[in-house]
Amino acid sequence: MTTDFRALARAGVRTLAPYVPGKPVEELQRELGLERIIKLASNENPLGASPAVSEALQRVWKDVGRYPDGNGFALKAALSAFLDVPSECLTLGNGSNDVLELLARTFVDHDDEVVFSQHAFAVYPLVTQAVGGRPVMVPAQDYGHDLAAMAAAVTDRTRLMFIANPNNPTGTWVGRGVLEQLLAAVPEQVIVVLDEAYFEYVEEADYPNGLTLLDRHPNLVVTRTFSKIFGLASLRVGYGVASATITDLLNRVRQPFNVNAYAQAAAIAALRDNDFLAESRRVNREGMRQLAEGLRTLNLSAIPSVGNFITFHVDDAARIYDQLLRRGIIVRPVASYDIPDGLRVTIGTAQENRVFLSALEEILAGH
Amino acid sequence: MTTDFRALARAGVRTLAPYVPGKPVEELQRELGLERIIKLASNENPLGASPAVSEALQRVWKDVGRYPDGNGFALKAALSAFLDVPSECLTLGNGSNDVLELLARTFVDHDDEVVFSQHAFAVYPLVTQAVGGRPVMVPAQDYGHDLAAMAAAVTDRTRLMFIANPNNPTGTWVGRGVLEQLLAAVPEQVIVVLDEAYFEYVEEADYPNGLTLLDRHPNLVVTRTFSKIFGLASLRVGYGVASATITDLLNRVRQPFNVNAYAQAAAIAALRDNDFLAESRRVNREGMRQLAEGLRTLNLSAIPSVGNFITFHVDDAARIYDQLLRRGIIVRPVASYDIPDGLRVTIGTAQENRVFLSALEEILAGH
Repeated sequence: MTTDFRALARAGVRTLAPYVPGKPVEELQRELGLERIIKLASNENPLGASPAVSEALQRVWKDVGRYPDGNGFALKAALSAFLDVPSECLTLGNGSNDVLELLARTFVDHDDEVVFSQHAFAVYPLVTQAVGGRPVMVPAQDYGHDLAAMAAAVTDRTRLMFIANPNNPTGTWVGRGVLEQLLAAVPEQVIVVLDEAYFEYVEEADYPNGLTLLDRHPNLVVTRTFSKIFGLASLRVGYGVASATITDLLNRVRQPFNVNAYAQAAAIAALRDNDFLAESRRVNREGMRQLAEGLRTLNLSAIPSVGNFITFHVDDAARIYDQLLRRGIIVRPVASYDIPDGLRVTIGTAQENRVFLSALEEILAGH
Repeated sequence: MTTDFRALARAGVRTLAPYVPGKPVEELQRELGLERIIKLASNENPLGASPAVSEALQRVWKDVGRYPDGNGFALKAALSAFLDVPSECLTLGNGSNDVLELLARTFVDHDDEVVFSQHAFAVYPLVTQAVGGRPVMVPAQDYGHDLAAMAAAVTDRTRLMFIANPNNPTGTWVGRGVLEQLLAAVPEQVIVVLDEAYFEYVEEADYPNGLTLLDRHPNLVVTRTFSKIFGLASLRVGYGVASATITDLLNRVRQPFNVNAYAQAAAIAALRDNDFLAESRRVNREGMRQLAEGLRTLNLSAIPSVGNFITFHVDDAARIYDQLLRRGIIVRPVASYDIPDGLRVTIGTAQENRVFLSALEEILAGH
């Protein structure tokens, strides 16, 4: 018996290369025996989460043995009030990654096309390929989405378009005007997914809130997450906002208990703490200034970013990534995002940013 | 513009009816304004989880803002030692439900067939249909799996077979002999999934441990969960054990952070507390005796079960379910499992079982 089990897998799965996450702290500790690690690799909130979340988590223990509410009644009610959208328009996900995947599994079949930008989030082609769809990558313009080219890339076979606003790992963003032009240009049969994972960090006046466009565009889906500014990456919770019809379809495919009870309770508490959000924004704003200036001082060019991370160019990204690792600092190489000379660093606390910059300075000076 | 968004969904999705979970406690409280609710609807451990889990959960807080370890290194190492299987044979899931779904998404394409038994877990046809596969339900024998008939149902198009051992909601099980006969009869190209969600409860001498069959059957996948005897249903963690080749395929499709950090820490702690498992088994054994005797006293026939639940027959299941609800007791109607006269009750604490039995007695007496 010599069954080739690989050959039994669906065609899209056989050639799938899994997503490579930022290196976990424990992994580097195991490898290098280092005590103190600074992780600036996964665009996490360096402040953690609101203390209100800690209290909320305590209260879940008494029901640890119970299944979560599969319909997420309380979290959807809280989000509905926070966002001013009806509960029936909300899809909860095990991170917004889950919602992105649900969209592909609901709307994309063999040889259907999914349009996204060069340098965009790695998960878009992965979820496309896993269902047998055809990823259509549109060349970027100055590292940002070229929405006109993306609209032009739509064919009869296009089912989904992913727009990351702002985009990870470049931190680029699109303004209201060009976004509205895109939505006007794309046929309504194409579902447009606006991935707003970093929405809460952006402070540009012309940055559009996707939720305000939902009324006029029934083919629009907005996704957001609690993993970034809300600081709940460990717990996995995100959501999609869309018409009730699209929401109903996504919820048919959704696993009944995809969002755990701890995550639901934490997210509800996180929504209530405006001070924590304001403080997180402040730390990010100042840290972004600190890192941008520091990189400039080191004569490194960076892609202007509105997120909680910044991608900069270096001569030998792999070597510098490695030398930072040896000093206990984890950043993210972005060669797999078609930026071979790029490293992405998450905005940390002032102290973390300082340690990172001086390590980088040492490495560049050849120490 | 009057796009029919339903028509844009994949064919299998359009006709998908989502899984209906047991009624959550909060939902019944909202509906009836009841204070005290006894939930015996979702086969949860009435003792909750080990106190060691509580301590482990506390320690995760400092990293609440960090993504979970996407590779689950520590949990896989703990499971590897606990089960005596290599880490590379383990797939972690957001509940074992996630692993069942991964199996369908990895191996089942349009019009491929998936064989399972009548009265078996509702998720098998759901995950099949969602990927466009064809569910093939084989009639049960005395409410249990008819493995000979299941083997005979295999065709050239069969990709997966699900065997629930024991089965939910019937509590029936298959012995080592018939299982080995099935594995010998089924072509190796068919992946056989042995769903052992209730494995730790079963105390029958002839009950097979699926892991011992993996060596001889490279097409076998065993799934288990922390949601049942380990009492971690709220946190969502389960796993699959299979050959390294099958495991590699499943992990390509798996979401990078499908199992949250709290769940990983809790599961590691849960594996260490043998006393809690022993106590849970004892409470279940005595509760099963209590409920079986109580049902017999009420002249109700029940399906003999080796799980932590028992399905019994009544004349008007919907009415009795409803009357139990009004008394604050939630059980599970199983009409959707082709048992229209059945109600499934989870084994609770002695006190919960008593309250349930006396409420049932009152209802049957017409009070």
